[in-house]
Amino acid sequence: MLIIMSLDSPRHDIESVKNKIASCNCTPHEIPGADKLAIGITGPSDKLVKEEFLLLPSVEEVIRVTKKYKLVSRQMKSEDTIINVNGTVIGGNNLTIIAGPCAVESRDQIFDIAGKLKENGINFLRAGAYKPRSSPYAFQGLKEKGLEYLSDVKKEIGINIVTEVLNQSTITAVAEVADILQLGARNMQNYALLEEVGKTQKPILLKRGMSATIEELLLSAEYIVSQQNFNVILCERGIRTFETATRNTRNWYLG
Amino acid sequence: MLIIMSLDSPRHDIESVKNKIASCNCTPHEIPGADKLAIGITGPSDKLVKEEFLLLPSVEEVIRVTKKYKLVSRQMKSEDTIINVNGTVIGGNNLTIIAGPCAVESRDQIFDIAGKLKENGINFLRAGAYKPRSSPYAFQGLKEKGLEYLSDVKKEIGINIVTEVLNQSTITAVAEVADILQLGARNMQNYALLEEVGKTQKPILLKRGMSATIEELLLSAEYIVSQQNFNVILCERGIRTFETATRNTRNWYLG
Amino acid sequence: MLIIMSLDSPRHDIESVKNKIASCNCTPHEIPGADKLAIGITGPSDKLVKEEFLLLPSVEEVIRVTKKYKLVSRQMKSEDTIINVNGTVIGGNNLTIIAGPCAVESRDQIFDIAGKLKENGINFLRAGAYKPRSSPYAFQGLKEKGLEYLSDVKKEIGINIVTEVLNQSTITAVAEVADILQLGARNMQNYALLEEVGKTQKPILLKRGMSATIEELLLSAEYIVSQQNFNVILCERGIRTFETATRNTRNWYLG
Amino acid sequence: MLIIMSLDSPRHDIESVKNKIASCNCTPHEIPGADKLAIGITGPSDKLVKEEFLLLPSVEEVIRVTKKYKLVSRQMKSEDTIINVNGTVIGGNNLTIIAGPCAVESRDQIFDIAGKLKENGINFLRAGAYKPRSSPYAFQGLKEKGLEYLSDVKKEIGINIVTEVLNQSTITAVAEVADILQLGARNMQNYALLEEVGKTQKPILLKRGMSATIEELLLSAEYIVSQQNFNVILCERGIRTFETATRNTRNWYLG
Repeated sequence: MLIIMSLDSPRHDIESVKNKIASCNCTPHEIPGADKLAIGITGPSDKLVKEEFLLLPSVEEVIRVTKKYKLVSRQMKSEDTIINVNGTVIGGNNLTIIAGPCAVESRDQIFDIAGKLKENGINFLRAGAYKPRSSPYAFQGLKEKGLEYLSDVKKEIGINIVTEVLNQSTITAVAEVADILQLGARNMQNYALLEEVGKTQKPILLKRGMSATIEELLLSAEYIVSQQNFNVILCERGIRTFETATRNTRNWYLG
Repeated sequence: MLIIMSLDSPRHDIESVKNKIASCNCTPHEIPGADKLAIGITGPSDKLVKEEFLLLPSVEEVIRVTKKYKLVSRQMKSEDTIINVNGTVIGGNNLTIIAGPCAVESRDQIFDIAGKLKENGINFLRAGAYKPRSSPYAFQGLKEKGLEYLSDVKKEIGINIVTEVLNQSTITAVAEVADILQLGARNMQNYALLEEVGKTQKPILLKRGMSATIEELLLSAEYIVSQQNFNVILCERGIRTFETATRNTRNWYLG
Repeated sequence: MLIIMSLDSPRHDIESVKNKIASCNCTPHEIPGADKLAIGITGPSDKLVKEEFLLLPSVEEVIRVTKKYKLVSRQMKSEDTIINVNGTVIGGNNLTIIAGPCAVESRDQIFDIAGKLKENGINFLRAGAYKPRSSPYAFQGLKEKGLEYLSDVKKEIGINIVTEVLNQSTITAVAEVADILQLGARNMQNYALLEEVGKTQKPILLKRGMSATIEELLLSAEYIVSQQNFNVILCERGIRTFETATRNTRNWYLG
Repeated sequence: MLIIMSLDSPRHDIESVKNKIASCNCTPHEIPGADKLAIGITGPSDKLVKEEFLLLPSVEEVIRVTKKYKLVSRQMKSEDTIINVNGTVIGGNNLTIIAGPCAVESRDQIFDIAGKLKENGINFLRAGAYKPRSSPYAFQGLKEKGLEYLSDVKKEIGINIVTEVLNQSTITAVAEVADILQLGARNMQNYALLEEVGKTQKPILLKRGMSATIEELLLSAEYIVSQQNFNVILCERGIRTFETATRNTRNWYLG
C-alpha cells in the first residue's frame, strides 16, 4: 500500500501517517518525488484500512501495490530514477558510459585506461580490485593494492570509480574508494550482502544473476531499497542459455 | 600435480616433499588415503619438475592433474568419500536419507517431525532456521529461536541436524548446532562463505546453483576442500530450464 | 468431455451417443478399455450438455476433461498403454529394451548387431535408414538401401525393426519395413507428419523435441492419437540446456 | 573451398573449373558477386588440390572455408544479401518493415490491415493462411480460403505477401500467392521442407527454432541455398529460456 501526500505536508501530518502504519505492525518508507511525497508500506497488510488513511490530514490518495516488489515498483515511484554522481547524471534521457578493464592489474594499466576514458569524455572507470572466480586457484584481483591504485587514479585524474564488493568483510574498505558499488551476478541473491551495501547509501550497480528472472532481479533491488537506498542501477548482462555463440543471451525489451 | 608416497613414509620425508613444493611458490595439501598418502599441489606449476620429485625419498609416483579442479578430482583421491556422522555413514554403498521440512516453524512441529524420522530409522533432520528468500518481506525463518529448537531436538531425540548457513556472521552459531552445514543454491558461488564453512571442518552439504554447470559445482567444492575440509556432500537438486512441469530439471547420469 | 459406457453396450446405444456428439458439431472417439468403453469428444464444447448424455441408454458416467490434451489424458484412458509387437510387450510392468546403432551403415554391420541383440534376448533393433542431419553435407543414411538391409535382417533373424520416418514422401516405404515408426526430436512439431504417421496405425516412438515442454510432447502425441492410433511410445531423451557435461538434460520424475 | 574468378571470365574457363570440381566427386556452385565470380565447392574435399585450381585460366584465388556451413558464409559471399521484391529492397542499409496479423481471419480483416499498411508506406503484409498449432483442436487457419483472400488483397491493394508454408503438399499453392515464403520456427529443421522451398526460388523468411543455435540456423539456411536459392532472410525471433517475462529471449549481437 502507498499513501500519497503533498510535498509540502507539515512534518506533523507525515509523522501521524507513519505512526498509524507502525501501529498496524508495518514499516513506513518515505519516498520523496518530484510533485508528491509517497509513504510506502511493507509488512503484513491485514490491519491496514484504506479509508482510515484517507481521513488523516494531508493524505491525498491511497494506492494498492499488487507486485511482489513494492518500493521499486512504478506504483511507488512513477518517475525514472536519476542518480547524480559528482555532477555526472545516470538515468533519464542521458546516455552515460561506464567503462574499464575486468580487473586492476597494475598502477600503469589503470592510469593509462583512466586517462584515455577522461580524454573521451567518460567519467566512470570500472575495474575490479576483488574478483570472484569460479576456481580458487585463479587470479582473484590485487585486493587492497588494487583499491589503492583506484584511490590514486580517482584523486589524480578525477574520474568516478565503479568497483565490485565481494563480501561483508571488505565493504567498508571498498566503499571508501568506490563512487558506485558493483554487486556481481554471483552475489545477486546474497541477501546479507544486499542489505549491507544498501546501508552504505552509495549508488549500487546490481548485476542480474546468470539464471535470475527479471522479477528476482527486482526483488534483489528491493532488498537494497528497503534500506532506504534508492540509488540502484540495474545491469542487464544477459542470462545463461544453451547458446554459446554469444557469452550470455541478453533479453531484448520492446516498448 | 600429485605426489604419491607410502602411508608409512617417515615424517621427515613428507616434510621435505612439502618444502620442495613451497620453494616452487606452490601450496602442498596432505591427503591421506586408504593405502597411500597423496600430496596435492596447487599454484603456478611452471617451476615443478616431475623428475626432481621422483628422486626424493619415499616418493612412489608423480601424477599430472589436468582438470581445473584438483583436490576434488578422482586423480587426487580415487576412493569414494565416506563421511561418518556420529556413527551414521554417508557415501559409498550406503543409502542414507536426510529428511525434514523447509523451515523450523515451531517447537512442536520440529519435535513431531524428528520423532517420526527416528521411528522410521532416519538419523538426519534437515530444517532451516535461517531461510534465504527472494523477497525481503517473506518469512526468513525463526533464526536464533529456530537454532534453539534444533539444539533441543538434537539433545532430546538424538538426531543429527542439517541446517543452512546463510552468511559469515552466523556461521559460529549455526555450526554449534549443525552436524552438517548446508550451503544453499543461491550461495554456491559465494566464495567468501565457501572458505569460511570450509574452515569449520564440519561436513558440508553443497547444493548445486540453479544455473551452475557441474564443473562450477566441483570448483565450489574445491573452495571448501582447499581449506583441508574433505567432507563435502554434493547435492544435485537440478537446474533452471524452460520446463515448468517439474520445479527443476535434474541431470540424470548414466554409467 | 468423456462418456463412459459398459463394455457390452449394444452397438445401437453406442451409435446413438456418437450421433448425438456429431449433432453438436463435435467428433466422437471410441476408446475401448479393460472394463469400460469410453467415448472421447473433441471440438467446440458449447453445445454439449452433460445431463442430456446421462439420459441416453448404456451411459454410466460423463466426465469433464480439463487438460489441453484430451485423448492422451488419464481421464480418457486411465489404464497404462500396453503395446504388443509380434508377441513382445512394451509398457505396463515390462522392461523392454530397444537397441541398435545410430544408422544402418552396411549389411554386415546390421546383421552383426541384430544377431547379438537376439542372442541377448532383445527383440527390437533400432537403426536409421534415413538420418536427419543439421548439415546438408553430412551423411544422411543409406536410404532405400538401408531399408532393404533392415527388411532382410527382419526376415532372416526375426527381430522387430524400429526406424525413423523423416518426411511424408517416404512414409509408405518406411512403414512397410518398420514394426515401430520413430519420429525424431526435430520433427516432434511437424504436425502434417504426425497426422500421416498416425494414419499408418503402426506403433509410434515419439521423441521429445530439444526444447519441447512435456505438455507440448503430449499435444504432439494427441495429433497421432486423434487419427485413432493409440499406440504411442513417448521417448524422454532430455532437453537442451546450458549444461554440456551431459549431451541433454533429462527430466527426472518422482512419484 | 572457394574458387575466385573475374566476373568477365569466358564461359569456357568457368566450365573447365566446374568440370575439374565434378571430377573430384564434388559439386560446384556458381555465386556471382558484385566484382568477382565465386565457385563454391561442397562434398568430400580430400581430392581437391589448391595448386591445381590456381593453374586453371581465369582463376584468381583459392580460399579454404573452415565453417560447417559453406554457401552462406562470408567467405563464400562477402557482400550483404540484398533482395529486391517487386521494387522494394530488403537488406543492406535499408530498414524494411514486414507487418501483419498472426492469421488471416476474414476478408474484411485482411483488406483493412493491408490498406493501413500501404497508407503508412509498408509494402509487405504478413499473415498466415496455414497455422501450425501445438494442439490439434486449435484454429489452424482458413487454409485455401485464406490464400484466396491474400491473393485478392495483393491484386487490389498492391502489397507483397509473406505467408507460411507448413508442409510439402501445400508448397505449390502457397508459392503461387506468396512473394516471400515463411518457414516457421517448428519447421526450421524439417530438412525435406527446406529443400523443397529452396527449389521454388522464392525469397525465404527462415525463422530461428526455439532451441536452435545460431550455427544450426545457418546450416538450415545452407539447405535452402544448396538448392541455388540465395534469397534467404534470417528471422531472429529469440530462443526459449527459463525467463517468462518476455515471450522469447532474443540474442543481442554487438559489433
